[in-house]
Amino acid sequence: MKVSVLRLGHRFIRDKRTTTHIALVARAFCADELILDSEDRDLEKSIVRIIEEWGGKLNIKVEKNWRKFIENFNGERIHLTMYGMPVDEKIPEIKKSKKDKLIIVGGQKVPSEVYHISEYNIAVGNQPHSEIAALAVFLDRLFEGDELNRNFKGKKRIIPQECGKKFA
Amino acid sequence: MKVSVLRLGHRFIRDKRTTTHIALVARAFCADELILDSEDRDLEKSIVRIIEEWGGKLNIKVEKNWRKFIENFNGERIHLTMYGMPVDEKIPEIKKSKKDKLIIVGGQKVPSEVYHISEYNIAVGNQPHSEIAALAVFLDRLFEGDELNRNFKGKKRIIPQECGKKFA
Repeated sequence: MKVSVLRLGHRFIRDKRTTTHIALVARAFCADELILDSEDRDLEKSIVRIIEEWGGKLNIKVEKNWRKFIENFNGERIHLTMYGMPVDEKIPEIKKSKKDKLIIVGGQKVPSEVYHISEYNIAVGNQPHSEIAALAVFLDRLFEGDELNRNFKGKKRIIPQECGKKFA
Repeated sequence: MKVSVLRLGHRFIRDKRTTTHIALVARAFCADELILDSEDRDLEKSIVRIIEEWGGKLNIKVEKNWRKFIENFNGERIHLTMYGMPVDEKIPEIKKSKKDKLIIVGGQKVPSEVYHISEYNIAVGNQPHSEIAALAVFLDRLFEGDELNRNFKGKKRIIPQECGKKFA
């Protein structure tokens, strides 16, 4: 099962830093791929640098025609939205299917067609909060917490400490 | 058990939007209080507006002398850091104690004294990612997912939908 994350609404400067957090979460919570709807060389560079140092993987692709990309996606489209169904109600069904997943993460205004084209509209709580948090909690549910223990095989590796910082 | 979140490093403009996400997550994931190390009227106003509409609560306080505040905190100090102990190893112990919790969320550089003064240094994965995601997953572990189903008693209330948006 391949897990892709599509970030919509990366056009605005105030969203740039948010997208960086989304990219970092996508990698650290073991998604395979991040798709942006507009180019961002700086973001790509900073993620490539992190992967070089810390290991793991996250392919970054740009799909300006994101509508077509969603339509043609061969697998399950999962749109994260505060208006959707509770994650804990739907996650057993989502986990059971081994189809590839496209997790769609929007900004403040997501076109209504995204709701209709998605197999699932999923809420990580029905309260306004953060697409970064929603993505992290969703991936944590999908991977049952195992994502936090994965070996990323990076040059840099932390040895967990009660106090202080230690590298392997 | 009262849960407070202390956000360190809110001085920088690039951190402002991150702090907004942290405040939204703190409220939506049922923390009681957010403490900032510098004033931000805009942030306070936007959170007050959200609480007026959507219910729930989140007191926002400013503590410029955050060192003293941490020292004097009567309860358990939990510093979220990628260098710390795995959350899933420590969370049973943390949940068992009913003492008040202070969750410390830093930016890129947290002074080493924070590691020493904290009862727990906790990693939500030992990979670089996002303090917003780390806070959400930590609170989700602490409240065992129940935080996503809490009734916030707001004027606005969403009725979860398979597709589209519906308010109560």
